[in-house]
Amino acid sequence: MRRILLTIAYDGSAYCGFQVQNNGITVQEVVNRALSEWLGEEVKIIGASRTDAGVSARGNVAVFDTETKIPGEKYAFGLNTRLPEDIRIQGSMEVPMEFHPRFSKTVKTYKYRILNRTFPDPIVRNNHYFCYFKLDVEAMKEAASALIGEHDFASFAAPSHESSTTIRTIYDCSVEKEGDVITITVTGNGFLYNMVRIIAGTLLEIGKGNMEKNCIPAVLDAKDREAAGPTAPACGLTLEQIKYPKWEE
Amino acid sequence: MRRILLTIAYDGSAYCGFQVQNNGITVQEVVNRALSEWLGEEVKIIGASRTDAGVSARGNVAVFDTETKIPGEKYAFGLNTRLPEDIRIQGSMEVPMEFHPRFSKTVKTYKYRILNRTFPDPIVRNNHYFCYFKLDVEAMKEAASALIGEHDFASFAAPSHESSTTIRTIYDCSVEKEGDVITITVTGNGFLYNMVRIIAGTLLEIGKGNMEKNCIPAVLDAKDREAAGPTAPACGLTLEQIKYPKWEE
Repeated sequence: MRRILLTIAYDGSAYCGFQVQNNGITVQEVVNRALSEWLGEEVKIIGASRTDAGVSARGNVAVFDTETKIPGEKYAFGLNTRLPEDIRIQGSMEVPMEFHPRFSKTVKTYKYRILNRTFPDPIVRNNHYFCYFKLDVEAMKEAASALIGEHDFASFAAPSHESSTTIRTIYDCSVEKEGDVITITVTGNGFLYNMVRIIAGTLLEIGKGNMEKNCIPAVLDAKDREAAGPTAPACGLTLEQIKYPKWEE
Repeated sequence: MRRILLTIAYDGSAYCGFQVQNNGITVQEVVNRALSEWLGEEVKIIGASRTDAGVSARGNVAVFDTETKIPGEKYAFGLNTRLPEDIRIQGSMEVPMEFHPRFSKTVKTYKYRILNRTFPDPIVRNNHYFCYFKLDVEAMKEAASALIGEHDFASFAAPSHESSTTIRTIYDCSVEKEGDVITITVTGNGFLYNMVRIIAGTLLEIGKGNMEKNCIPAVLDAKDREAAGPTAPACGLTLEQIKYPKWEE
């Protein structure tokens, strides 16, 4: 038996998220089916990040175990010919059997993209959130920097989060504007349920002037979901990268 | 009667082109229907550019005539609430009744985007052409510059072009690379049928080393479609802007 790691990109707009569930088609299900049909085994991938419905990814990670003896890097090419065009494997390799994509330490990077102008751009609608109100980018930048570090992010977690601790470390949280697009980049060692979307929703409120740019310390201190801004829409969010520092040494 | 100009953006991937036709749904048809239902008149828009199936636009232009008395700039907002999310009006204004979007002099800018890397990116698939072979960008730049100026572009027109002359002026033709994306930008006073896609297809052949970087003068001289490269796929092409110099003075 061998364990193969896949780096997976997808346009999440047509999927009910990554993880298999009853109420609609998911990325995991589509990849499981393509792998099983191709390899002639019942394959079940285990994903690193269970992204929500409508969230896209350029670098989600999953593993599967197989008896087949194809060279590790070839699974990506073979699988891509069997997937719908909104899912594309970005690479594959053999990893040790003890590697687990969710129970290993990770550094994840998400980007939340906001198109800030008068009219929506239909060409980028699937991974940009459209915002008509002119946002104060400098205020958003200042607020974002206050999120960096180890904090209790209870205020930035959906009440249904089910995590044993709400303490997380954010290594970087930045806001950049290029043309009409404002990009929030968040890198951290783990994220609570909806955490990046609640960070984006809070920064959007600050950009609109509905919350103060220096409010973040008080929002963190409150440890109360009600203290933060709303959960920003899924379409703006992309999981860009997952790194495994221990395994990449 | 008043004439209203619309600037129209669309993700062309779901449409059989701009112009109404029998074999599938088109952008024009969808906009006609939305306007007619909204305004309670039978509205028929006249487009500036009849983009092909799969081609996108950020700045196509169309006009329609109406008895309604809504302020010119308000049609954009009202119409957007009645269109599918892959079509969005970018602006509207009243223009003189003698303005015609196709019979007026124009300066059009197209971009052809190529994703040049090992694996496709599903998130940008609708308006980037994926190319696995590593392209020689410097050779493409050199060849592109030879297309600038007034030339007989017969070699760069689909044989079915139906234009009375094949002489056109290209004001700018440039190739830029940013990350994995190579963008060909072409600005000119008019384009023959499939002209930008044949230019892109020829530059792709040059980038792959299948045609010489200094071949353009000979390809132009041949005045023969066979002398140029293949027509590049529609998904890479976006009509970015149409300017009307006379009307904007």
